[in-house]
Amino acid sequence: MSLVIVGSVAFDTIETPVARKERIVGGSCTYSALAASFFTRPKIVAVVGEDFPKETAAFLKKRHIDLKGLTIIPGGKTFFWEGRYGDDPNQRDTVRLDMNVFSDFRTELPASYRAPDILFLANIGPDLQEHILAQVKRPRLVAMDTIRFYIENQPEALDRVLRKVDIYFANDEEARLLTNEKNLIRAGRSLLDRGPRLVVLKKGEHGVFVFGADFTFGLMAHPCEGVVDPTGAGDSFAGGFLGYLDKIGNLRASTIRRAAVYGSAMASFTIEDFGIERFKSITPSEIEARFAQFKKLVSF
Amino acid sequence: MSLVIVGSVAFDTIETPVARKERIVGGSCTYSALAASFFTRPKIVAVVGEDFPKETAAFLKKRHIDLKGLTIIPGGKTFFWEGRYGDDPNQRDTVRLDMNVFSDFRTELPASYRAPDILFLANIGPDLQEHILAQVKRPRLVAMDTIRFYIENQPEALDRVLRKVDIYFANDEEARLLTNEKNLIRAGRSLLDRGPRLVVLKKGEHGVFVFGADFTFGLMAHPCEGVVDPTGAGDSFAGGFLGYLDKIGNLRASTIRRAAVYGSAMASFTIEDFGIERFKSITPSEIEARFAQFKKLVSF
Repeated sequence: MSLVIVGSVAFDTIETPVARKERIVGGSCTYSALAASFFTRPKIVAVVGEDFPKETAAFLKKRHIDLKGLTIIPGGKTFFWEGRYGDDPNQRDTVRLDMNVFSDFRTELPASYRAPDILFLANIGPDLQEHILAQVKRPRLVAMDTIRFYIENQPEALDRVLRKVDIYFANDEEARLLTNEKNLIRAGRSLLDRGPRLVVLKKGEHGVFVFGADFTFGLMAHPCEGVVDPTGAGDSFAGGFLGYLDKIGNLRASTIRRAAVYGSAMASFTIEDFGIERFKSITPSEIEARFAQFKKLVSF
Repeated sequence: MSLVIVGSVAFDTIETPVARKERIVGGSCTYSALAASFFTRPKIVAVVGEDFPKETAAFLKKRHIDLKGLTIIPGGKTFFWEGRYGDDPNQRDTVRLDMNVFSDFRTELPASYRAPDILFLANIGPDLQEHILAQVKRPRLVAMDTIRFYIENQPEALDRVLRKVDIYFANDEEARLLTNEKNLIRAGRSLLDRGPRLVVLKKGEHGVFVFGADFTFGLMAHPCEGVVDPTGAGDSFAGGFLGYLDKIGNLRASTIRRAAVYGSAMASFTIEDFGIERFKSITPSEIEARFAQFKKLVSF
């Protein structure tokens, strides 16, 4: 099986109630590829500037992430985001955003990327998502994520992409915005009519709902006593979820439920440290232990 | 086994996005006794005025609720609350509150109430909670609930009661306020140090956490597509929870987990209609079916 992930690789400056960190590596592609790398060998598609740290590239390679689709723009500057979190980890303010090399990124996929089993169109513009989608032979599974900005500014392009994907990952705010439904359950289910076979609603500290045609799965978030940095939790969730699906190779409801647990496990690790730090120490047995903790948490 | 519930019996005027209802019967004692009545035969302690409808008293009796502890004040007016909900069912504004006969309610328990297995001190002032507690032979289990008003205005009396109870039911706002902890998991666990053996954190549409000395249980709320009236959900949860414990008669972790599921089931019925309406049609097989739905929802 193979998983291609398209998204952002970025520098983030992050302020949380715990501390402030300047220009640490982040981005939707980075987080989801790292999370997926504990289950499969993801190939990434992204763009960075010449300022991107060689140590990070080396770390991604060490995690068996394929960087053939990572474009480095000579003299360019990597995408930059600055955000601030208050006491509610589900809420954040964007302080600054510099698209830099990302602003008009269009790419031709390497030949080895053009027949993936799973394609994940992470948080990038819907036009770029379509541009990538047009370059691959129909994968077994296409998943997508988006953000408020594209829902508000490119609703038609977004609707076109939604009709072409199998899984849509949204957080609660995005789902409500896109459907104009206040009730989250109705919002989630109504998104199934827009194209995807599966809608995954991420509620942050309140857990996740997965809506399928014939089942709904709900999972509490791991009870975390100290969120250090919520950044990348949703991307790590998606990466763990899709990485596990790629490893198992089927889409049975039971597999999807377990994928959501592995996704939640990866998200729960991510928030324990700033940026991608936590990925440097996670072990497979820690992941299995957390899976078992989820089982204990919700069983009755 | 036997369960005594002390709390308010009230008239509520309720406005939700669905409709407005004037002076319908509500109150923490009413909701929790009705929810408990599907598992055991609760005895209630409360006070009403002469304006309290005979049909409601008849309905409570039909549900095998013991009304010997219900004081009717001749010429008195029943406690009245008016509240308004917006789109978020977890948020409400109190528009008006008339304590009426409740304002200086002190009561002597009937002899048949003085040796309960379980005593539930629902949402009433901590002084009254202590006054009741002093009249019973040490029950196997004492549970309590409170509201923001008492946390802010009678913190010392509240702390005394907390030290004497086994189970504390709180919603997320109350838990944060009482502990000064922003993180809900830390808030819940730290409440265990204040006295109770079990802390039950009700998160409304986001489900419930139960914290014990050696386990944590988390349950998603029933995925409800249309909340008609959120009033009484928390009280119905507590009633179903304690009613089930009274029926089963032990406090094993597995029993407590199931009690939380039955509590959530009762809360999920309550919000499907205004006030106590839904209790008029619930059947035992509906409750078992909802229990099974919860199992399906969260299993992996």
